[in-house]
Amino acid sequence: MPLIDFSLKEIFSARQRIAKITRHTPLVTSSTLSAITGAKILLKLENLQPTGAFKLRGATNKILSLSDEERARGVITVSSGNHGRAVAYVASLQNIRATICLPKTVPENKRAAIRELGADIRVVGDDYDAAMDYADQLQAESNMTMVQAFDDLDIIAGQGTIGLELLEDAPELDTVIVPLSGGGLMSGIAFAVKNISPSIHVVGVSMERGPAMVESMKAGRVVEIVEEPTLADALAGGINKDNKYTLPMVQKYVDETVLVSEKEIADGIYHCLKDEHLVVEGGAAVGVSALLSKKIQKLGKNIAVVISGGNIPMDVLKKIIVEGDGAR
Amino acid sequence: MPLIDFSLKEIFSARQRIAKITRHTPLVTSSTLSAITGAKILLKLENLQPTGAFKLRGATNKILSLSDEERARGVITVSSGNHGRAVAYVASLQNIRATICLPKTVPENKRAAIRELGADIRVVGDDYDAAMDYADQLQAESNMTMVQAFDDLDIIAGQGTIGLELLEDAPELDTVIVPLSGGGLMSGIAFAVKNISPSIHVVGVSMERGPAMVESMKAGRVVEIVEEPTLADALAGGINKDNKYTLPMVQKYVDETVLVSEKEIADGIYHCLKDEHLVVEGGAAVGVSALLSKKIQKLGKNIAVVISGGNIPMDVLKKIIVEGDGAR
Repeated sequence: MPLIDFSLKEIFSARQRIAKITRHTPLVTSSTLSAITGAKILLKLENLQPTGAFKLRGATNKILSLSDEERARGVITVSSGNHGRAVAYVASLQNIRATICLPKTVPENKRAAIRELGADIRVVGDDYDAAMDYADQLQAESNMTMVQAFDDLDIIAGQGTIGLELLEDAPELDTVIVPLSGGGLMSGIAFAVKNISPSIHVVGVSMERGPAMVESMKAGRVVEIVEEPTLADALAGGINKDNKYTLPMVQKYVDETVLVSEKEIADGIYHCLKDEHLVVEGGAAVGVSALLSKKIQKLGKNIAVVISGGNIPMDVLKKIIVEGDGAR
Repeated sequence: MPLIDFSLKEIFSARQRIAKITRHTPLVTSSTLSAITGAKILLKLENLQPTGAFKLRGATNKILSLSDEERARGVITVSSGNHGRAVAYVASLQNIRATICLPKTVPENKRAAIRELGADIRVVGDDYDAAMDYADQLQAESNMTMVQAFDDLDIIAGQGTIGLELLEDAPELDTVIVPLSGGGLMSGIAFAVKNISPSIHVVGVSMERGPAMVESMKAGRVVEIVEEPTLADALAGGINKDNKYTLPMVQKYVDETVLVSEKEIADGIYHCLKDEHLVVEGGAAVGVSALLSKKIQKLGKNIAVVISGGNIPMDVLKKIIVEGDGAR
């Protein structure tokens, strides 16, 4: 029995829909990570999307799929930052009114980027779930169109376009390493690669501090976690109390999960800066962290690591360089 | 009368020769620079070459063109860092003995990278020209094969492969902005693009502190300059007392030159970090600096900026972030 009414067709359609706004991002070999691991390591540079994160793919696919009536009502979303920026960006291109609800944990650089795009920004609640409650209430009152951050098939299809690009640019891939949070990115990529090349080993990486999806996968149901401060702010938050799609998809398609510590995330960011010449945010460095810490159980020979975004606050970057200078 | 015995054929041949070692680097749109300038700005990411700089192209082409006898004698070079690293890298892949002479001005991160590649490293002389004198003497005594950093047709052909990639990936280009130092990069790119699309406007950018090539172009002969400390360390040094190729080629093909200040170079590096999610060294940021400072006289609509390398010392990066936090 198919899990849900979803197929590769939706991902291919998403690709056509989003092509004018999003980028087919580069997939580049990492010489240093290849030397360290003895495998060929390719980095998928979603930090080079116009909004600095993969979230633009899903948000574009969703907004371009709305009816005129849904667009006219304006869109609302809740986000840990990158999805909100993506929604604000596409909404501004499409002349749609956008309201972006953010918990107080969202760093200032991500708030500023959303503000600059002209969106109505609401910073409410101490964590992601609290901001979500606020957004749900505001949506009910205002009748704006909700653009979910991850638990939505149009969003998943948009993120899944990364999977298509991976297999086109590197048909020899045997392992894909993907940051794991609400599961939109993971569901899209894993669905695409497993349905095209079922033998590909799919690894999800979360931070030790509040890995809601990994806990939920273990329990077989939505587990609410206490959100903790983490360098991987983009991965923070729950997976939605009434999760419909991403938990079952991740359960079906993810072969292995890894948790990384704050120190390992910092090491991943520092490695990307110093050796890859890339600015990568904490939530996007976790795949590199997992490789450097040698925590992945089954590693193939041709491995893609999704670098999901680059919107790291400059003060965090500074701190990592200062600490990195001494420690590494 | 042709300037020299050099044609597009040499550049196309170089491309075939170097393809297994170097990368066809990504050319990515910069949303922020496009918004600032009102033109489409594309960044050519040579900081993503395996050795972190474009120098790998020329060094690979040169070394793979050597005879068995020349290889057997070992190679020697003088470098401000990135060329030396490239030579050491290719030599190690090819099992050729390499001696790299560096002036004391070369930052420690670049020295360490060369050392790690197993090359014989000689840090000698207070500036590039002094290191060059040492290298010439050592070469005469030892009979090692000299691999020039820029004033060599094989080197120029290697760097010229960037020009081919630019026109293939963006045939609509009307302007190309290139860091200008000894002129190897510029000669190669300018020769390629002008001979394929003569109307392309070619802009060279140097730092205000010791722009040897720009002074030499003005004077119509090799001008020796006093080397000054600069964020653009990769661009420091003279253009060779007995310059044969790059001065005449640059004089023939470069339409405009721009000089940028240390502050403008820092702004360029900071912009790349914060808005492009790229780690770029000073000598590679000068094209972005020239755009941000609005110093370029003639700007087209479809512009490529060559980001020539990313090997910035972590302490310099830290300083730029600290100062950038306050000033920008």
